[in-house]
Amino acid sequence: MSKTEDRLNEMGYILPAARKFPSPNRCGCVRVGTILFISGHGPHHPDMKVREHGKLGKDMTIAEGYAAARVAALAILASVKAEVGDLDKIKRVIRLFGMVNSSPDFEDQPKVIDGASDLLFELFGPDSGCHARSAVGMASLPRGQAVEINGEFELLA
Amino acid sequence: MSKTEDRLNEMGYILPAARKFPSPNRCGCVRVGTILFISGHGPHHPDMKVREHGKLGKDMTIAEGYAAARVAALAILASVKAEVGDLDKIKRVIRLFGMVNSSPDFEDQPKVIDGASDLLFELFGPDSGCHARSAVGMASLPRGQAVEINGEFELLA
Amino acid sequence: MSKTEDRLNEMGYILPAARKFPSPNRCGCVRVGTILFISGHGPHHPDMKVREHGKLGKDMTIAEGYAAARVAALAILASVKAEVGDLDKIKRVIRLFGMVNSSPDFEDQPKVIDGASDLLFELFGPDSGCHARSAVGMASLPRGQAVEINGEFELLA
Repeated sequence: MSKTEDRLNEMGYILPAARKFPSPNRCGCVRVGTILFISGHGPHHPDMKVREHGKLGKDMTIAEGYAAARVAALAILASVKAEVGDLDKIKRVIRLFGMVNSSPDFEDQPKVIDGASDLLFELFGPDSGCHARSAVGMASLPRGQAVEINGEFELLA
Repeated sequence: MSKTEDRLNEMGYILPAARKFPSPNRCGCVRVGTILFISGHGPHHPDMKVREHGKLGKDMTIAEGYAAARVAALAILASVKAEVGDLDKIKRVIRLFGMVNSSPDFEDQPKVIDGASDLLFELFGPDSGCHARSAVGMASLPRGQAVEINGEFELLA
Repeated sequence: MSKTEDRLNEMGYILPAARKFPSPNRCGCVRVGTILFISGHGPHHPDMKVREHGKLGKDMTIAEGYAAARVAALAILASVKAEVGDLDKIKRVIRLFGMVNSSPDFEDQPKVIDGASDLLFELFGPDSGCHARSAVGMASLPRGQAVEINGEFELLA
């Protein structure tokens, strides 16, 4: 059994199924050596009721955005598990690039992307969970989703 | 001769000259070990008539954006060839970050960036061509270009 | 003494203190092998008077943006020094991702991000300072800051 996934479950979360892509041209993540390069993931989770779509600063609150970012982090973890088999193989969260669907005057992207960063920090602990990050405002995102997050993870050798 | 470039030609495309930058402060890509970190490339090709400039959701169609993204992929390949000498040295497309000049309500960035992803997938085949990806909406892009794409490629050791 | 930091001082710049983050969930950069993955950094420097906040194409000039991007590069260097101890350990600037807080019709992001690229190019010289780059327009940025820059640096083994 995976200790990391157990811990995630104890935290009250269940991994969704890994995202299926509409075209074979892309996939959830690609491994090169011990670095995993991760696709942008949105806030879709079949079992968690969060607002997936909306624009911060216009029709969505920071709390709703925070919940969406948390789900995007779960979607990333699902892709990573599908690629490497077990979340215990993750050595460290390297970096997140957090994109927030934002009105031109929204300035609180960090508070939104904290939904993802806090989950990963709690799950992996201070040494492995602390990561480099950007949290920035996009003009728009696919399907009108509120957030999209990509990044890099380090794997055990 | 380069098998990869031959295949590209058979697919009906010709590599443009590698982009020249207005300042020596930057270049098309930088190699670190077997990973190539690639600059943002726009849809400029002297021999292909595509709309380079425009904003999706405002004054440009998805089909026009798709064609522009395809040309941006060719511009990336030209930079990679200039750096490593031969496209046959590419082991894998790792990841693309596809940026679409978008109105605030445009939601079809994936259909636009598919122009790049489909070309690379067809050129390199399912094992080497499938890649991680983000396709997202930017407020604006240099020179008003419709798309800009950066990413990472893996090289043979 | 650090030769690189001496050179920076001779160029007329002083490293700011490394940024402190409001949450332990993130940090300025993460090292994996010889690659440093860097967080997004804004234009804050306690000793340099630049306009930190504003939107290009709306209420801020290119010259002001250029100065802000230069300060963001200094903020990156401060984070790198805090992580690795000495700027002399930098082998090369690999890539910058330059994000400019932009109105929908602003098209001169490269001229803004040149503030960072020119400083790094001058500091590290043509072989180590030339880097891959994107310079693109964001709908909005945290705290309304004018620019945010992340990227990757290569370290000596």
